[in-house]
Amino acid sequence: MSQKVRIALDSMGGDHGPAIVVAGADLALTRHPECEFVFFGDKTQVAPFVAERPALKAASRLVHTDIAVRMEDKPSQALRYGRWKSSMWLAIDAVKKKQADVAVSAGNTGALMAMSKFELKTLPGIERPAIAALWPTLRGESIVLDVGASIGADAEHLVDLAVMGAATARILFGVVRPTVGLLNIGVEEAKGLEQVREAGRILREAQSPDLDYTGFVEGDDIGKGKVDVVVTEGFAGNIALKTAEGTARQIAEYLRTAMGRSLRARIGYLLARPALAQLRERMDPRRANGGVFLGLNGIVIKSHGGTDAEGFAAAIELGYGVVHENLLAKITAALGRQHNEPRQALGGAAS
Amino acid sequence: MSQKVRIALDSMGGDHGPAIVVAGADLALTRHPECEFVFFGDKTQVAPFVAERPALKAASRLVHTDIAVRMEDKPSQALRYGRWKSSMWLAIDAVKKKQADVAVSAGNTGALMAMSKFELKTLPGIERPAIAALWPTLRGESIVLDVGASIGADAEHLVDLAVMGAATARILFGVVRPTVGLLNIGVEEAKGLEQVREAGRILREAQSPDLDYTGFVEGDDIGKGKVDVVVTEGFAGNIALKTAEGTARQIAEYLRTAMGRSLRARIGYLLARPALAQLRERMDPRRANGGVFLGLNGIVIKSHGGTDAEGFAAAIELGYGVVHENLLAKITAALGRQHNEPRQALGGAAS
Repeated sequence: MSQKVRIALDSMGGDHGPAIVVAGADLALTRHPECEFVFFGDKTQVAPFVAERPALKAASRLVHTDIAVRMEDKPSQALRYGRWKSSMWLAIDAVKKKQADVAVSAGNTGALMAMSKFELKTLPGIERPAIAALWPTLRGESIVLDVGASIGADAEHLVDLAVMGAATARILFGVVRPTVGLLNIGVEEAKGLEQVREAGRILREAQSPDLDYTGFVEGDDIGKGKVDVVVTEGFAGNIALKTAEGTARQIAEYLRTAMGRSLRARIGYLLARPALAQLRERMDPRRANGGVFLGLNGIVIKSHGGTDAEGFAAAIELGYGVVHENLLAKITAALGRQHNEPRQALGGAAS
Repeated sequence: MSQKVRIALDSMGGDHGPAIVVAGADLALTRHPECEFVFFGDKTQVAPFVAERPALKAASRLVHTDIAVRMEDKPSQALRYGRWKSSMWLAIDAVKKKQADVAVSAGNTGALMAMSKFELKTLPGIERPAIAALWPTLRGESIVLDVGASIGADAEHLVDLAVMGAATARILFGVVRPTVGLLNIGVEEAKGLEQVREAGRILREAQSPDLDYTGFVEGDDIGKGKVDVVVTEGFAGNIALKTAEGTARQIAEYLRTAMGRSLRARIGYLLARPALAQLRERMDPRRANGGVFLGLNGIVIKSHGGTDAEGFAAAIELGYGVVHENLLAKITAALGRQHNEPRQALGGAAS
């Protein structure tokens, strides 16, 4: 990895396309001048936004394509018309060809995952990649994975998620041995899915130096920040993530209604506004914008489709951070340790 | 069903036992004088609380038992020592023997479900009962089921959940043909679990007069109140419910911190307090306290273990409401229609 962090951007992704992608890159550049960008997209749409920003123009180049993946298409459709030539594909391809260290897209999640898997392939021993989300908690942030890359997981896949999530937490949160919990419905050992119990047994017996497995956690433990890494299969993980987002919006709506209802409440609101702004900031989904695709031979970051420039910058900076700390090498090493050592030891003890 | 609604109460359940159960019953009685109660529990603990309340004393009787199910025990343990003789068992048994119309307990959920299933048995054609939760939304309330009675569900079980949930919504929300959505991860027809897609196909083709199937919903649609009934299997449903509760508590904590941070914010808080109290009330989990066990030959209501008298009264009143409207007969009739008519029609069309 060079001193520079080279970031490939799908300029056509997301609800707002190049306007947000270019503005977000500009913001990220002011905070991390060692970023270099390659914009993939329609040059007639992208170039004008870049031209307005001389510093960004100097730190970037633009690769033209007129194929953009649509937000509403199925992964299979997107692969059909977008392979080899869409802005999304080309951004991922740049990572594969070592022309970029990370790809960032606000586009169609399913298509981005399908193309990433197709082009980058999974790491040795990993069958299915995962999406890791940064989840704001009362203690800071946690990583929750998988939030929707695949449905269902056997015990070994859950263990791999734990290892990959912990490697990511180590980098993002700066903790040596992140705490890891398995999402379940009830904290007693006997409850929950067989594969979750089995994964718990493997993690507990492995006593890995890379992670501190603390047992089962329930849905309401995520927001408490009970553990650094919450591990679950993608169906339940996606439902948890979306439900939390929905609940936050619901309460924000209640708050807005409550504060507008009487003159007294409105005056109170004006006085409390700075405090409420702080609250809004803590609830701001842009702060934690960006899912990390894990388990691939390369790093891909998914930004929310509806985000603004600040949110897209956060996704870029997330990518910058994990590349800067060499996440991929650390995940590969940790998976190697997990796949060779503890399971061998376990096999020896069990058989 | 008599004019009176006869309610069997597990007086020893929940974190606070008889103090809360008796006080809750008293509150419910003032609002619904046609309630009659049977308290099951340790008479030395229960009788003093009843004695303080003459109206309640007149409308209730007390059946002594010194066996109480502990909150932390596994269902199998609870069945071992609590069958035939615990306060929880006796309350359910009163429903079975038609001595009561509904049983209400704030005790151990797993034990309550195991005993209910063991004693009441499931309805014809239903293999596994479900827990339906009342979920506050931006449009009022929705029913979400299953929130944790069993793990996993095939398409037929999901269809049964839809039918039972719709029958409950019809009574509780007073809508003739409640809207029903299947919880999934993505709204396109091709996404999600095979059994969820298959259930969607059955519901769509059935065109039932009892429910209006509107398609898939995602986690963030629950809080919007997009549909009256959200159907999911118990693992994902429990995680969604707990995650929403956790997020609500997390935001309440943020709000508390934000409002206490400066003098100006504190003054603003004082002025906005009535409005915020309204907000708190809308976020109050006691308002929607009570899960309905569905699919059994009898109605059992589960109250939150940590609730107070107002919350326990809400659980009793939920039981009162569904008994008063004859939920069990309506569910049985709707299941009969679903199991005989649409599936036959489907079979005819498909084969």
